[in-house]
Amino acid sequence: MVKVKVYVTLKEGVLDPQGKAVEQALDAKGFNGVSDMRVGKYMEFNLDANMATENQIEEMCEQLLANPVIEDYRYETEEVVSS
Amino acid sequence: MVKVKVYVTLKEGVLDPQGKAVEQALDAKGFNGVSDMRVGKYMEFNLDANMATENQIEEMCEQLLANPVIEDYRYETEEVVSS
Repeated sequence: MVKVKVYVTLKEGVLDPQGKAVEQALDAKGFNGVSDMRVGKYMEFNLDANMATENQIEEMCEQLLANPVIEDYRYETEEVVSS
Repeated sequence: MVKVKVYVTLKEGVLDPQGKAVEQALDAKGFNGVSDMRVGKYMEFNLDANMATENQIEEMCEQLLANPVIEDYRYETEEVVSS
């Protein structure tokens, strides 16, 4: 079994109104000095070892987990040691 | 300037219907072998160096970026070298 962690972020240059809203909310609460806030998604899941090829994970990201038109993704995998 | 990356995840034991939906959608698309999908948030932003104390970032997470009742968070910081 492999643990996969996927990070999905908006591409540079794509407007991020959610990030802007969070930034303003922080400022309103007195947390100043925040800039360039970007909000993305983080997903983690277990994957059967025989499915955990680079190719397979990239297909999952391209087809469902990220929108490749406006989003970038990166992922990490780590072996799960079954106890 | 410091770049801060915040990862927000649902606590273990908290139901994650969004993760379940993504898992089923992957399965329906022929990506089998996925289990324990959890969907969280990923935020990155720049912070003025004089604000970037551990205490300050934790306060931001507790008060706005995460819901400490049902979510865990962790963060990383890295120095931004201005060019």
